[in-house]
Amino acid sequence: MGELGTMGGTRDFLPDEMIRREYVIDTLKTIFRKYGFEPLETPAIERWETLAGKYGEEGEKLIYHVVSSGSLGTLKAGERTEHALRYDLTVPLARVVGMYGDQMVADPADPKKQTRRLPRPFKRYQIQPVWRGDRPGEGRYREFHQCDADVVGSTSPLVETELIALTVEAFKALGFADFTVKINHRQLLKGLIEQAGIAPTKEATVLTSIDKLDKLPPEKVRLELAGKGLNADQLDALFQVIALEGTSEQVLEGARSLLAGSEAAQRGIGELTKLLHYLEALGVDSAYYRIDLALARGLDYYTGTIFETVSAAKVGSVGAGGRYDRLIYDLSGGKADLPACGTSFGLDRILAAMDQLGLFASLRRAGEVLVLHFGDPGVSQVCFELVRGLREAGVRAELGYHEEPFTPNGMRQQLGYANEKGFAYAVIVGPDEMAQGQAALRDLTTRRQEKIPLATAGQLIAGRLRS
Amino acid sequence: MGELGTMGGTRDFLPDEMIRREYVIDTLKTIFRKYGFEPLETPAIERWETLAGKYGEEGEKLIYHVVSSGSLGTLKAGERTEHALRYDLTVPLARVVGMYGDQMVADPADPKKQTRRLPRPFKRYQIQPVWRGDRPGEGRYREFHQCDADVVGSTSPLVETELIALTVEAFKALGFADFTVKINHRQLLKGLIEQAGIAPTKEATVLTSIDKLDKLPPEKVRLELAGKGLNADQLDALFQVIALEGTSEQVLEGARSLLAGSEAAQRGIGELTKLLHYLEALGVDSAYYRIDLALARGLDYYTGTIFETVSAAKVGSVGAGGRYDRLIYDLSGGKADLPACGTSFGLDRILAAMDQLGLFASLRRAGEVLVLHFGDPGVSQVCFELVRGLREAGVRAELGYHEEPFTPNGMRQQLGYANEKGFAYAVIVGPDEMAQGQAALRDLTTRRQEKIPLATAGQLIAGRLRS
Repeated sequence: MGELGTMGGTRDFLPDEMIRREYVIDTLKTIFRKYGFEPLETPAIERWETLAGKYGEEGEKLIYHVVSSGSLGTLKAGERTEHALRYDLTVPLARVVGMYGDQMVADPADPKKQTRRLPRPFKRYQIQPVWRGDRPGEGRYREFHQCDADVVGSTSPLVETELIALTVEAFKALGFADFTVKINHRQLLKGLIEQAGIAPTKEATVLTSIDKLDKLPPEKVRLELAGKGLNADQLDALFQVIALEGTSEQVLEGARSLLAGSEAAQRGIGELTKLLHYLEALGVDSAYYRIDLALARGLDYYTGTIFETVSAAKVGSVGAGGRYDRLIYDLSGGKADLPACGTSFGLDRILAAMDQLGLFASLRRAGEVLVLHFGDPGVSQVCFELVRGLREAGVRAELGYHEEPFTPNGMRQQLGYANEKGFAYAVIVGPDEMAQGQAALRDLTTRRQEKIPLATAGQLIAGRLRS
Repeated sequence: MGELGTMGGTRDFLPDEMIRREYVIDTLKTIFRKYGFEPLETPAIERWETLAGKYGEEGEKLIYHVVSSGSLGTLKAGERTEHALRYDLTVPLARVVGMYGDQMVADPADPKKQTRRLPRPFKRYQIQPVWRGDRPGEGRYREFHQCDADVVGSTSPLVETELIALTVEAFKALGFADFTVKINHRQLLKGLIEQAGIAPTKEATVLTSIDKLDKLPPEKVRLELAGKGLNADQLDALFQVIALEGTSEQVLEGARSLLAGSEAAQRGIGELTKLLHYLEALGVDSAYYRIDLALARGLDYYTGTIFETVSAAKVGSVGAGGRYDRLIYDLSGGKADLPACGTSFGLDRILAAMDQLGLFASLRRAGEVLVLHFGDPGVSQVCFELVRGLREAGVRAELGYHEEPFTPNGMRQQLGYANEKGFAYAVIVGPDEMAQGQAALRDLTTRRQEKIPLATAGQLIAGRLRS
């Protein structure tokens, strides 16, 4: 056996990293639940036919195939396998809605009646890894978690409103101070392209260029678009709208009059106006969102409102979403025809951003208090009671371990462990301390040590940790 | 595209099931952390050489291989692939300890010093899916979660003590009233076999038969052992010890005198005696554990204390563990030579047991209060404020969604949704109610409806839910 290792593009998450990941995931879950989203998990291994033809030619090349040991021997070169690893969480959602969306079960309130197995609308969140056989690189992994919240089965603009509200609440809860949810609408962009006299066939490529406006200066994007065959009049028409400035209401007002000739644009503007009204009525602080007509979002399946969150950290967007009213039909193979709208939090980027912004400063590792242990039976009892009392008070207390029988090296080992794991305090009760009814309390940050009364040691330590 | 479906032996966890799973996992995590265990996650895809030769011939056949799309074309029949899916959580733990166990990093307390990247002992928990290409059947899945807590790097009997203490605490916290942690020791069993005059080469097969004593009557097990070549004297010597009855202390006392001639047995008995003393000193209720000399545990890698938890539910053991002081060396390819002891909770069986025992009765789904919405701007504002206030009070409140513009069907849809999702209350504020400064509160369990003052509606509802 050579050196131990993992596959490129995959990661071991050791405790210090896991504690950060779990903190972010738990914060998001709490907010998802508060807004009425319910958890869903699907298998890592999907049938190939569920994934086939869903991710475009380039995407499909990145799918990992799964082969049982028995089938390895019979697999023919170039043959597709029956099973493959999950590539995203949207296709599994469409499959779940297609399979169970119309299933009826006994009504819990009245067993004689039937009710839908999945509520409609179905509001679910899903936080699971996905796999892509991409070339690994800075911030690009072959195994990474996606973290999605979607509503399937409603066209109400309240859906977009609540997804944006929960996005704002989530980033505030994670400690972000400076972030913006940029909002736009696919119908507005469609109308803009239409009214600028650009052929509808060019819509996707024009949007791809517009989407670069957050990284490139407008002149460069104009040049790129000219290279795609747009003339000066068309470019002027586009940029006149994109360059609109002011409050969200002012930008929409400007677009309303400039795009008066496009029915699609007017529909988009109408929906965004309603969204702004609802966001205000729901009390979402307008400092955290704004209409941005340069937001295009690469993926071509969006049909309505689109949004994307950017922060002060240099990591790119930390979350994005939008309405996609035709995708569930396509992805479920026509088994479910339901409108949908969702948002996705970029877990790895959020972690990188929080690291950059110093938002993990107060996160502690698992250990809080280490009670050293010497193996003397009378003393053991006292140490055990102290640990038990601390744990009952909600403190993460540990007993020091030593080899049997106890040797002086055992104490050095235990203090080394306390240091490696970042404990706040160590408590030492030896035979001497016990005879005096005392314990030695060592603050492992300042390295100062003091004597405290044994009888009230647990209370005193719990109090200091929680102050 | 044919019918939608999943691979046999895998499962979609819809919200009602997920809520139960998350409840159990969150309960276990809280207890792991309290005892100083830290989270670890490793990639689903491992290098083949990490897994090869670790699970025996039969186990290895169940491993799923992973192939990128590009490699499908060049894969030769029968050829092993470079990568495969995780089969358990113990081999990845050994790999992690082998890779990072001796790595040094800057000491957080003093950057000029170096400290170990992983604390020693390393106390980690890991809750992740594993994959096995087994034939699916009742309670046998191809993708299922394992839930392990292990301590690597200490021979202290405090490790076993705390693992059993946390096991008892976990099952109590999950609501189990009637359960037992059965405890035995591999050295005691080894000494028993030795002293009965049975060849050491027969140890594994004899233990396999003894392990069946919880399902088969002693006569059947005797018959099976006789079939394996044991004579009457050997069988009597075995069963004289196994049949010892009484308190844990009495059983150990009996074994101590019957197995006086075996050094291994006396070592095992000495360690179990210390364990009982420590469990009592730590205040673990002795109603929940006992020495059971018929417990053998199938896996042959255990070297010391072994234990297994059984409950009143008919699902088999719900958890098990033990000390395995040589396994990390073997599994890490000799990169780490550390003693270890761990426990594993059987998540699927725990869920089945809790279902059987009715321990999920009080678990609620995501929805608590649905505030119906009619789309009238003035009323909207009131509904939004009500939802916002309820959420701030920690209530899982949702706004009803309806298609725009609102039609009378919208109200029926919203009440249908409330029913499907099991909400406790629906709140209705229409123009009439608003004019009277009232809201209609419908209890969705009793289906009774009453008028409440709008101004204090949020407080009143939050109070009822929390009472």
